[in-house]
Amino acid sequence: MLKNYLLTPGPTPIPPRVLETMARPIIHHRTPEFQKIIQEVEEDLKYVYQTKNEVLIFAASGTGAMEGSIANLFSPGDKALVVRGGKFGERFGDICKAYGIEFTALDVEWGKAVDPKMIDDVLKKDKKIKAVFTTLCETSTGVSTDVEAIGKIMKNYEAVLVVDAISGLAAIPIKTDEWGIDVAISGSQKGLMIPPGLAFVSVSPKAWQVIEKSTLPKYYFDFKAYKKALGKTDTPFTPAVNLMIALKEALKIIKEEGLDVIFEKHKKMAAAIRSAVKSMGLELFAPEAYSDGVTAVKVPKGIDGEKLVKTMRDKYGVGIAGGQDEMKGKMFRIATMGYITPPDLIVCIATLETVLSEMGYKFQLGSGVVALEEALR
Amino acid sequence: MLKNYLLTPGPTPIPPRVLETMARPIIHHRTPEFQKIIQEVEEDLKYVYQTKNEVLIFAASGTGAMEGSIANLFSPGDKALVVRGGKFGERFGDICKAYGIEFTALDVEWGKAVDPKMIDDVLKKDKKIKAVFTTLCETSTGVSTDVEAIGKIMKNYEAVLVVDAISGLAAIPIKTDEWGIDVAISGSQKGLMIPPGLAFVSVSPKAWQVIEKSTLPKYYFDFKAYKKALGKTDTPFTPAVNLMIALKEALKIIKEEGLDVIFEKHKKMAAAIRSAVKSMGLELFAPEAYSDGVTAVKVPKGIDGEKLVKTMRDKYGVGIAGGQDEMKGKMFRIATMGYITPPDLIVCIATLETVLSEMGYKFQLGSGVVALEEALR
Repeated sequence: MLKNYLLTPGPTPIPPRVLETMARPIIHHRTPEFQKIIQEVEEDLKYVYQTKNEVLIFAASGTGAMEGSIANLFSPGDKALVVRGGKFGERFGDICKAYGIEFTALDVEWGKAVDPKMIDDVLKKDKKIKAVFTTLCETSTGVSTDVEAIGKIMKNYEAVLVVDAISGLAAIPIKTDEWGIDVAISGSQKGLMIPPGLAFVSVSPKAWQVIEKSTLPKYYFDFKAYKKALGKTDTPFTPAVNLMIALKEALKIIKEEGLDVIFEKHKKMAAAIRSAVKSMGLELFAPEAYSDGVTAVKVPKGIDGEKLVKTMRDKYGVGIAGGQDEMKGKMFRIATMGYITPPDLIVCIATLETVLSEMGYKFQLGSGVVALEEALR
Repeated sequence: MLKNYLLTPGPTPIPPRVLETMARPIIHHRTPEFQKIIQEVEEDLKYVYQTKNEVLIFAASGTGAMEGSIANLFSPGDKALVVRGGKFGERFGDICKAYGIEFTALDVEWGKAVDPKMIDDVLKKDKKIKAVFTTLCETSTGVSTDVEAIGKIMKNYEAVLVVDAISGLAAIPIKTDEWGIDVAISGSQKGLMIPPGLAFVSVSPKAWQVIEKSTLPKYYFDFKAYKKALGKTDTPFTPAVNLMIALKEALKIIKEEGLDVIFEKHKKMAAAIRSAVKSMGLELFAPEAYSDGVTAVKVPKGIDGEKLVKTMRDKYGVGIAGGQDEMKGKMFRIATMGYITPPDLIVCIATLETVLSEMGYKFQLGSGVVALEEALR
C-alpha cells in the first residue's frame, strides 16, 4: 500500500491524461490517422524547441540521438570539441572514441559550468574543429550551461553547435534558433512527461550542409532518411506508435499551459528546493550554475547517501536520484520539471527530513518544509 | 463510431491485460522493482526464443537490432552473405552497404524461399564469408524460410548465422539453439503483442567470439555493453520502461497459453485464410513457402489494390496491409498471429468479400466465409 511519489530527473511522472492514451487499442503507423499525429507532434515539438528547423523523431533513448549527432556530422579525420562536466558530457567523448573521431576535451569540474570563453579559445587555435558538443542541463550534476553565450561565440566560426538538451527541453528555456543551436538533442522522459523510448534532434540548415558530406557509417540513425520520410509525413522505420500518441497529448498539455508559465513554475520550484535544503544545513552541489530542472545536493558527512535514497524510496515511496559514477553515494538529486508539483516537493522535503533525522543527521526538524512553504507561497 | 479490427503484420492488436499496464504510473528503471522486471522478461524471452543464449533488449525498432548485428559482427574488409527475397532481406544488404561491408547477395524471387543448398554452394566457394543473413518470416511477402535446414548446413562452416525473426518470433516456431542460430533478431509489435519500440537479439557463444574481434563503430547498439549491463540486471542506457512492463505481461500470457498451442492456433488460422481466399478465386503470393504468421494474396486483375486496402480500413474499420515497394498495389497481407483471433478473421474475410464485390470483382459471395468457417471448426 506504499503510495509512490516520483521526483527523479527522468523518468518523470506522467499526467493521467497522457497515461490513458497508452491504454488505447494500437493503430497502424502507415495510415492517415497516424500521419495526422506525426504532423501535430512535429509542429508542437518545434514550439517546444522554439525552432523552425526540422525535428527528427527516433524510437530510441536519448543516447541513440547523441550517437546520431556524431555519426551524421563527421567523416574520418574530423575533429570535435567536447565539453565534459558530467556523465552525459563524457558520453559525447565516449561516442567520438567509438567512431574514431579525435576530440579536444574541455574538462570542467563536476558541479561547475563551462566558461564560454574557453570554447572561444579552443576554436581560435584549432580551425579544424567541426563541431562543439555541450549539455544544456547536465542531469548528473544539476548544472546548467550558458548555451546562449556559447551560441554567440560560435557565430564567428564554421563549426556547428550540438547541444544535449535531453534533461533541458521543456524544463528550462532553450531558444534553438535564437541561440544558434545547430543540433539540439532531447528525450521523452524528462520535461516532455512521457515514458522513455523516444529521442529527438532538431537540425539547422547549416548542420544539414555538414551532414551532406558526412561519410561515417549510419543506418537506423541516418538523419537524411528521417528528413526524407518527414517530407512525406512518414517515418523510415516503424515508429514507437503509442509513445508518439502519448507525446501528442503531452505536447498539447504543454501548449495549453504555455512554455513561459512552465519555465516560471520550474524556476520557483527549484528555488524552493534550494532554499529548503540550505535551511536544513545541506550544501548544493552546483551552487552557481544550477539548473531549474534538477537540483543536486551533497550528502552530509557521516550519512550513507545510497542508503538515504533507498530508504526514502522503499520505506516512504519517495523516489529521488542518487549520484552517478564518481558521485555515487555522495549526492542526491531532486527534479523539478514536468508533472512534478509543489505538493510533491513538500512530500519530498518532509520525507528527506524524516530519513536524515532517522539516520542521525543533526538539524532543525521542519526547517526544510518551512523554507519550502515560504518560497512556494 | 467505426469499430476497428487490426489484422496487419505489425503492429498487431494488444491484449487489454497488456494495454492496461501501460496506463500505470511510471516507475524508475534503476530500482529493485525494475530489476525484477528485467529478470522476468529475460527469462521469458529465452523461453520464446527457445534458447540458453543471452537475449539483449534495445529501446528501438527491429531495424536498430538489424544494424547492431552488422556493426557488432564485422570489421572493415569482412564479407557477408545476404539472402534477399523481400524488403527486409534487402535491408540487411542496405545496412552492409552503409557500413562498407562487401556482401554476396542471394537474390530470391519475391514470394519464393531460398533453397538452403544455394547457401551451401556460396559458402563452399567463398571461405571469407563471416556471416549469413536470412529472414525467418519475410513480412513483405509472407514467405517462411527453412532456417532449420540452413542451420544444419552452417554447422560445417565457421560463418555465423543471423536470422531476422522480427515477424517470426512467437508467431511461428523458431528453435534458436537446436537450429544453430547465432544471432536471432526480433521486435515487439508482432507475435509479442506489444507496441513497437523494443528490439531483441539473442547471441550465441560462437557469435560472442566474433563480436569480441569486431572493430566497426557502434555505441547505442554495442552488444557487449548490453551483455555487461545484463550481468548486473541493468541496461546500459535508459530502457523503454513502460514497454518493458507491457512485455512482461505479454510474455506471461504467452507462457500461460504455451508456445505449442499458440503455433498450432496460428497454423490453423493461416490455413483457414489461405483456404478462404482460394475459394474466392484469389491467388496466394507465396503458395509454397507460406508463413503461418502472415498471408500474402495477389490482388486480382482490374482491381486497385491500394483502394481495396483503404476502403476496408476507412469504410469498414478492418486494417490489413498492402504490398510494399515493387508489390505496391498488387498484394494485400493478412496477419494471423498474436492477439488476432478466428472471429477477427471472419470479420476480415467477410469485409474483403464485401469490398471486392463493391469493386466489381466477380466471385461467389460468401465463398470465402464458408471456406474459413469450415477450416476453423
